[in-house]
Amino acid sequence: MIKWLINGAPGDSISVMDRGLTYGDGLFETIAVRDGCARFPDYHLQRLIDSCQRLSIPVPDDHTFRTEIEGLAAGCQMGTIKIIVTRGTGDRGYGPPTHPVSTRIIGLIPDQPPPGTPWQSGIEMTFCETRIGVAPDLAGMKTLGRLDQVLARTELTGSIFREGVMCTEDGEVICGTMSNVFYVNEGGLATPELARCGIRGVMRRLVMEQAPLAGIECREAAVHPDELLGANEIFVTNSRIGIWPVVRLESIRYEIGPITRRLMAALADIGVAECRV
Amino acid sequence: MIKWLINGAPGDSISVMDRGLTYGDGLFETIAVRDGCARFPDYHLQRLIDSCQRLSIPVPDDHTFRTEIEGLAAGCQMGTIKIIVTRGTGDRGYGPPTHPVSTRIIGLIPDQPPPGTPWQSGIEMTFCETRIGVAPDLAGMKTLGRLDQVLARTELTGSIFREGVMCTEDGEVICGTMSNVFYVNEGGLATPELARCGIRGVMRRLVMEQAPLAGIECREAAVHPDELLGANEIFVTNSRIGIWPVVRLESIRYEIGPITRRLMAALADIGVAECRV
Repeated sequence: MIKWLINGAPGDSISVMDRGLTYGDGLFETIAVRDGCARFPDYHLQRLIDSCQRLSIPVPDDHTFRTEIEGLAAGCQMGTIKIIVTRGTGDRGYGPPTHPVSTRIIGLIPDQPPPGTPWQSGIEMTFCETRIGVAPDLAGMKTLGRLDQVLARTELTGSIFREGVMCTEDGEVICGTMSNVFYVNEGGLATPELARCGIRGVMRRLVMEQAPLAGIECREAAVHPDELLGANEIFVTNSRIGIWPVVRLESIRYEIGPITRRLMAALADIGVAECRV
Repeated sequence: MIKWLINGAPGDSISVMDRGLTYGDGLFETIAVRDGCARFPDYHLQRLIDSCQRLSIPVPDDHTFRTEIEGLAAGCQMGTIKIIVTRGTGDRGYGPPTHPVSTRIIGLIPDQPPPGTPWQSGIEMTFCETRIGVAPDLAGMKTLGRLDQVLARTELTGSIFREGVMCTEDGEVICGTMSNVFYVNEGGLATPELARCGIRGVMRRLVMEQAPLAGIECREAAVHPDELLGANEIFVTNSRIGIWPVVRLESIRYEIGPITRRLMAALADIGVAECRV
């Protein structure tokens, strides 16, 4: 049973006129919960609040959020706190209400560890046929409209691939269906720049912050599939999984390399327990 | 008071786990109602059903839809029937359920005629700064994720512009914020092709069907802003407005030309009353 709070009150439904449903006019976060605590709530709330400001969605009160997050996380050994913030209800038509009142949805979803030990043994990955939409005005944000990722994810159903790489129409590598992608080659550690689309993941940010502290330079780059295929190491990140090394992309095999291992150790040290291998 | 039916039962709320909200995993239609009748329901239902099939969303029963549409429209002089179909509720994660049960939402929203007489006097239009997202795998469909159009629409708030032109990141003209765009130049009547993004509007389809019957050839083309600015006639279409001539784009003035007038007459003849000027 999932416990939801809607604008602070228990409930599990929203109006059919909520712009989150009608136009994808909102944002979401998924925060890992481990041993009764939400992981990196500051980073998630900062992205959420920054995105609200960028979209002119009224920003819910920070203190209220923290209280709700702490309350839901307490007593949960392993779960995900899902937050949705929408521009609230509105009349028909794309134009937002003059004085929107945002809808704040927050719930705790109990989790099981993923099957197998992907953080240890690595995952196999493929390129998805579904192209990620290029929407520079929404780039970086975790907006509600994720249908391209849904379709890409569907391609993996029943396959051995735990993740799929998504590219733009013009062949730029952006991300995985549910993760950000990093790779290591002669130029060092790199990750796709996200100026045109993609989500600036919290775990991506943590890797980019931890890398220099571990003596590893990390750059953002325009990435072509060939660079990924020719890389020495590849790994994917998201808030709930930490780092998963990639041991195969299409027909090419990869080692779990030294840079990946150092970064996993660095993340483990700041609290991402599943990176401790 | 708006009357909603959710999977056939009166109600006005949906689960916070509905994938329409969580991922924009669904479609919608807005059907004009005039004098107790839904206008062109076959065209709307065909687009909806085609799109459901394309997205592997279970297709709601056609007969049920027709009964609900007729029931809601009866007795309404002027309104909009809004239909939303989602992939239904699901667990957390982009991957759809193995056996999704779609959510069918339908409601009647009473309307007022738009202010002024835009169909007669024409509208002023500008180019929006917000770029329309390029998502070829979703192109043509009226999916729930419309945040780029929301942002573009917001640019027009408080301005004299009744509509704004949306272009892709690389400068291709696609549509208006809530309409499809047509223009006439030496090459004849044309409208942006929608292979990369944009919605294949029902009124757009009707114009393209009626044009040849009225002796007017209509082509789909990759359109640059200069072609629009240099056109002899411009008009925009949507299901609820029919055709609105454009009398100004940025600083350039346009006549309501002979092609626009012939097409408005043709649409009026097949039941788009507001095109009778």
